[in-house]
Amino acid sequence: MTGIESAGGVGPGAQAGVGGPAVEFDAPRADLRRVGIGRDFWYPVAVSGSVRKGKVFATSFAGERIALYRGESGGVHALEDRCAHRQVPLSMGVVEGDALRCAYHAWAYRGDGRVSQIPYLSRECARPPRGVRAFPVREAYGLVFVHPGDPALAEATPLPELPLLGSPRYTTMTFSRTVRCHYSFMHENLLDMNHQFLHRGVVGRLRPELLGHRSDAVSAEARYLFTHDGGRRDRGAGLLAGEGVGRGGSADVMTIRTEYPYQRLELVPQGAQRPALSLWAVYVPEDAEQRTCHAYGLLTIEKPRVPGLLRMGWPLIRRFTERVFAEDRAVVEAEQRAWQEQGEDRNHEVFPVVLDVRRVLRANGVPIRPARPATADLVH
Amino acid sequence: MTGIESAGGVGPGAQAGVGGPAVEFDAPRADLRRVGIGRDFWYPVAVSGSVRKGKVFATSFAGERIALYRGESGGVHALEDRCAHRQVPLSMGVVEGDALRCAYHAWAYRGDGRVSQIPYLSRECARPPRGVRAFPVREAYGLVFVHPGDPALAEATPLPELPLLGSPRYTTMTFSRTVRCHYSFMHENLLDMNHQFLHRGVVGRLRPELLGHRSDAVSAEARYLFTHDGGRRDRGAGLLAGEGVGRGGSADVMTIRTEYPYQRLELVPQGAQRPALSLWAVYVPEDAEQRTCHAYGLLTIEKPRVPGLLRMGWPLIRRFTERVFAEDRAVVEAEQRAWQEQGEDRNHEVFPVVLDVRRVLRANGVPIRPARPATADLVH
Amino acid sequence: MTGIESAGGVGPGAQAGVGGPAVEFDAPRADLRRVGIGRDFWYPVAVSGSVRKGKVFATSFAGERIALYRGESGGVHALEDRCAHRQVPLSMGVVEGDALRCAYHAWAYRGDGRVSQIPYLSRECARPPRGVRAFPVREAYGLVFVHPGDPALAEATPLPELPLLGSPRYTTMTFSRTVRCHYSFMHENLLDMNHQFLHRGVVGRLRPELLGHRSDAVSAEARYLFTHDGGRRDRGAGLLAGEGVGRGGSADVMTIRTEYPYQRLELVPQGAQRPALSLWAVYVPEDAEQRTCHAYGLLTIEKPRVPGLLRMGWPLIRRFTERVFAEDRAVVEAEQRAWQEQGEDRNHEVFPVVLDVRRVLRANGVPIRPARPATADLVH
Repeated sequence: MTGIESAGGVGPGAQAGVGGPAVEFDAPRADLRRVGIGRDFWYPVAVSGSVRKGKVFATSFAGERIALYRGESGGVHALEDRCAHRQVPLSMGVVEGDALRCAYHAWAYRGDGRVSQIPYLSRECARPPRGVRAFPVREAYGLVFVHPGDPALAEATPLPELPLLGSPRYTTMTFSRTVRCHYSFMHENLLDMNHQFLHRGVVGRLRPELLGHRSDAVSAEARYLFTHDGGRRDRGAGLLAGEGVGRGGSADVMTIRTEYPYQRLELVPQGAQRPALSLWAVYVPEDAEQRTCHAYGLLTIEKPRVPGLLRMGWPLIRRFTERVFAEDRAVVEAEQRAWQEQGEDRNHEVFPVVLDVRRVLRANGVPIRPARPATADLVH
Repeated sequence: MTGIESAGGVGPGAQAGVGGPAVEFDAPRADLRRVGIGRDFWYPVAVSGSVRKGKVFATSFAGERIALYRGESGGVHALEDRCAHRQVPLSMGVVEGDALRCAYHAWAYRGDGRVSQIPYLSRECARPPRGVRAFPVREAYGLVFVHPGDPALAEATPLPELPLLGSPRYTTMTFSRTVRCHYSFMHENLLDMNHQFLHRGVVGRLRPELLGHRSDAVSAEARYLFTHDGGRRDRGAGLLAGEGVGRGGSADVMTIRTEYPYQRLELVPQGAQRPALSLWAVYVPEDAEQRTCHAYGLLTIEKPRVPGLLRMGWPLIRRFTERVFAEDRAVVEAEQRAWQEQGEDRNHEVFPVVLDVRRVLRANGVPIRPARPATADLVH
Repeated sequence: MTGIESAGGVGPGAQAGVGGPAVEFDAPRADLRRVGIGRDFWYPVAVSGSVRKGKVFATSFAGERIALYRGESGGVHALEDRCAHRQVPLSMGVVEGDALRCAYHAWAYRGDGRVSQIPYLSRECARPPRGVRAFPVREAYGLVFVHPGDPALAEATPLPELPLLGSPRYTTMTFSRTVRCHYSFMHENLLDMNHQFLHRGVVGRLRPELLGHRSDAVSAEARYLFTHDGGRRDRGAGLLAGEGVGRGGSADVMTIRTEYPYQRLELVPQGAQRPALSLWAVYVPEDAEQRTCHAYGLLTIEKPRVPGLLRMGWPLIRRFTERVFAEDRAVVEAEQRAWQEQGEDRNHEVFPVVLDVRRVLRANGVPIRPARPATADLVH
């Protein structure tokens, strides 16, 4: 399932998206919600199953539209989603072999972005553009990753490592959801476990106690002791508890870690040697202003001792996680709306772990490129 | 039903909304649709029945979001609708006794806006903010009023007086509607009775004759003689006529008065000693740019001589007033849209009463505070 | 059906819309999608049947709202759609004889825009405005045309000539559709016949070959030889083929011509003396920024040799043209969206005919007048 396709960009727009933090970007003082996500990483932009053979799938990274397509030979290609001719989305087009043909005037593109055919080109025609930007692509863990930064760095940049995914002891659930907030709200939400009040209807009364936290240039981590104090809880939560997760009276250790730009959560039940549950997540900005992100999550759960039990409980566990996620989404989207109305970040954070992750997200981010709304400039 | 709760604001935003007309505000020359409503008055922001015991109700005044909640002791509290921590709306929260707890990290607030508890606060945490702004609240006439201006002036500022509401001779209907226009269009609409053509399908042919008008620094008043000339009319209108209001051939005296910031209308049938109908209304800006207002109205009608008739006729009278209101709303919202498209006030008013009320609304208004859209400024 | 009504504008706004290209408008270098359409032409703004006797119809030209109404004497009048009093749309009003009465305070207007009555005007009232702008109107070919430019030029400006419309050999179908794009995308779409790939599901495999093209200051023309290569096609297309249009193996000559601001297409089957099909079209900007246009089209088809066949085939031909139009609309609207996201015209055109028509559209256009959004300026 894992494969590399290195693709050099061509055409005038090829280098547009490239570049690390600009010199004039004063990260420590920037409003965190105006900090763009670092580009020199692998980001998922689709679930593999959404990119079927011979089909095109429209996605985006931070406002850059991307046309993913899977050619005849099975590999996925990622092109800038604009025909070089008239800027019509290539995702409206047609896959032919390993090429993608624009729906309008039938220009054809190779997977590396070069124009391979213009059916009607004659001597009288002007010299056509060479092609469009292509993104390096890798496919792994059931996700399609692209590298939106400097293509020269792509090959040396590792994909995230998810060793439990290959283990026969574990099974994995994939999440893919749009959330209308800056990616930073998601990191802060997961790292600050003092928000269990929000989930009281699903998890009952959970008491988290911060055991410790640490942080460096690219990561922030918190460890909690979780005790269940009673109260109603969802059957999916109960099922996880029956398997050693969050049992009444028990105490589990939960470790949450942002390792830029990804985030992980691991839950180790009292006395256990390995995680009962592990979540890997990343929040990929969709729009140019990075006020909407796409959350991709891989939830890996230890298989239960009773065979077949997991299969029966799977829908309940999914429902439980969906409910928790829906509650989190409601508040982070409310935070984003507040920020937009207030025009600045007025949060007064008190919790050290959140202060840690904010510093990490600022330091590793890049300026958000100004959008070019066509509204203001008018012909005079 | 009437009660006072004086509440001093705390926290950094507490004084933000305070202040009378700024020195640099050139009221006589300002575009009236850019004049904000004066803040040092009591404004309804909810119907009492919408704020149930133990529940929160989200409302706003001129773009300031307000969380109203009714505590265990029955009183209503009005807090800035932003948790001081992460700016999540407190209206998503939970009432506990007379406190309000934020849904996200469970911070608790007292009715005066002070933070009363942060469940997880430890020595390692940063110093938390003190609280949020609280608005003085009074409840009267079935409405919840707040005082959005200088809190020091609240207690000495009288609520509007509505003596007929207490009288056994009269009965009252409450109206509460959002209208997408600047409040000034509403004042002009009611004061200029030459718009009966708009209501021709409901009231038939009504001929208003201006008997006189007067105006001072805070008020503008017009008196009309109303004669009904025939034409179809709504059954609710007929019912009012049967009770002496707008009878065919008869002539009623209608007095309409803006007494800043409220408006009243009284209708005295020919030969009668007291009003057959009295309307009190106020148009409370909802959004920061004050292009949408919430109209609160109390329509007081003399009880008919035949007992029981009013109860039977009540639905017809409500339908009649709803139809009239719907027609008025259509035109004032059209006026607002025209203003937005034209970017300035291009009205050419000819009627002296409207010129009077415009002067009053300008002189008693305040600058509209600039919104802070988070769109323009980007990190460079 | 053809009639002239010359109408001089009155009121302060009467001259606002008038004027040719401004001196400072550098047409050759302007972004084509920011070039406004030339005003000194006759433009359809409604289908005649939409303007019924005694009724008002709201339309617009490039953001100027227009109230069309047909008076008792049968003629259509076109007034600025704003009452001079309070800017309420006159299209909410009521036709009385040949006058139009505003719905709000019942001011009446004549067809030339002058106020003819204000029912309540008294000595105390201020001097009222004289009226609103009126547009010259002509009705022809089942369409209502207005002249939005300098009214002094209107009478001497000819309506488009459509000789086939009067011929008994031909029959005509009228199209009227809103398309959310700048009018220039429509001209380019029709002139560049290399986009048959877009219509492959409807027309099968059509091979266009450019026979020649020419262009001058006000026009651009292309001639193609069309050969049908097979492939499935729509039954409407087949029906046209049966009548000599696009038969399998045959070759038709198609001539497409932009003659500013209109566009024509004529198809002459091999060996025929006269067109089998002729389309006249114009794309009238609806909004001030000219990002939406209204396409009016008259499709004239030679009557078939078998009597009655056309009547039977008419619905199929309409469906065929609707399908082709829907496909074209999808791409031109995608082009407009791309332009808005990119903030500038990044098209890389290679085809000489499109380069020709761009030059013509730029040279005959005018600056788009800046809209006045009421958002930015606030009282300070």
